[in-house]
Amino acid sequence: MELETHLDATPGTVRPGGRTAKVRAAVLEATQDALADSGFHALNLDRIAAAAGVGKTTVYRRWGSAVGLVTDLLRDMAEQSLPAADTGSLDGDLRANARLVLDTLTDARMGPVFRAVIAAAACDEQCADALRGFYATRLGEWAPVVERGVAQGAVPAGTDPLELLRAVSAPLYYRFAVSREPLTPDTAESAAAAALAAARAGAFVV
Amino acid sequence: MELETHLDATPGTVRPGGRTAKVRAAVLEATQDALADSGFHALNLDRIAAAAGVGKTTVYRRWGSAVGLVTDLLRDMAEQSLPAADTGSLDGDLRANARLVLDTLTDARMGPVFRAVIAAAACDEQCADALRGFYATRLGEWAPVVERGVAQGAVPAGTDPLELLRAVSAPLYYRFAVSREPLTPDTAESAAAAALAAARAGAFVV
Repeated sequence: MELETHLDATPGTVRPGGRTAKVRAAVLEATQDALADSGFHALNLDRIAAAAGVGKTTVYRRWGSAVGLVTDLLRDMAEQSLPAADTGSLDGDLRANARLVLDTLTDARMGPVFRAVIAAAACDEQCADALRGFYATRLGEWAPVVERGVAQGAVPAGTDPLELLRAVSAPLYYRFAVSREPLTPDTAESAAAAALAAARAGAFVV
Repeated sequence: MELETHLDATPGTVRPGGRTAKVRAAVLEATQDALADSGFHALNLDRIAAAAGVGKTTVYRRWGSAVGLVTDLLRDMAEQSLPAADTGSLDGDLRANARLVLDTLTDARMGPVFRAVIAAAACDEQCADALRGFYATRLGEWAPVVERGVAQGAVPAGTDPLELLRAVSAPLYYRFAVSREPLTPDTAESAAAAALAAARAGAFVV
C-alpha cells in the first residue's frame, strides 16, 4: 500500500507540512532502518519505497540514488537532533554532551546508522559533505555552552568553542569508528574531563 | 606473467623468507593499491592476482576473500610500521606521534588506504577485529614514550599510556573519518598539546 493512498484514506492524520513532509518522514525512516540493518552498500531505492509505502517513482524522482537518501537523512538528523544542555556549569554541559554522543553511538539503532553513514562518507564525497554539514550543525548548536563557560571564567577567554567540543567527541568516535574499542560510561566521563582539563590549560585558545 | 615464474627466472632476487614472503608482499602491495584507488567494496581477488603477478589459485587459497586480504594487510601494516619516537621529551615525542598520524592520513596513498580499511571495518566484523589489532599494536609500540614521561615527571604517576596516546590520535582521526574536516600541521600540534595538557592535569590517571 502506498503512503499517498493511506494518507488520503485517513484524513486528519496529516501533520502540518502535509503529504510531502509525511512522505519524506516515511522514506527517511525506512532509510534509517535499512542502514541500521544492512549498511550503506545494500541500500536499494525499490526496497526503501516498498518499506516506506511510497511509490517507487516518487523515491527515484525525489532522492535519485542511495547517496541522495543518505544526504537527505543527514540533513534531517541535524534538524531533529536534541538541543544543547544547560546544566548551569561548563563541566556539567560537557559531560551531558559526551553522554549524548555515547548514548547515540551505543544505541541499538543509531549506532549502526552512524557506522553506516561514516562508511558512506568514506566511499562518496557527497555523503562526506553531508556528514561534515551534520557535525557543523551539531557543534554549532553546542557552541553557546562553551561561550557561557568562557563568560563564567571556567575556561580562558579566547577558547574556541568548536575545538573544545570536537575534543569531547573525538575520543568516543575514535573508539567507535577507528580503533573499534568498546565504549562505556567511563569513556564518556573521561572524554569530557580530559577536554575540560585541556581547555582550562589554554589548549583551545586561538 | 606470474610472480612464481618471474622469481624462478631471476635467482638471487628472493629476499630471506623466500617465495612465499615475496608472493605475500606482492599481493598486499596490490591490495593496498586497489584500496587506495577504489576502496574496499571494489576489491576483487582476480584483479589483485593479476596486478600482483600471482596465480589466482594462490590468492584464493591463501586469502580466500576481500576480508582475508584486508585483515592480512592490517597485520602486515602493524608489523611494518615505524618505531616510536625518542626525542628526549614527552612533549617532543607526542608531537612526533601526532605528526606521524597526520602524515599518514594526509598521504596521497596511505590516506585513501586508511579510509578504505576504516570503511571495511564498518561493514565487516573480521576487518573490525583486524583494525582493533592494528591500533593495539601501534599504541603498544608508543607506550614506552609515556612511561619515560612518567619517569621524568612530565605527567603524573599512574598516567595510562594508551589513554594519553589515544587522546593524541583521536582529534586527527575524528576530522579524517567522522567530521570530514581538513587536517593541517596545526591540527597535529594542537592535538599533541591538548593531550599533554590534559595528561598534566591528571586526566589519564587510572
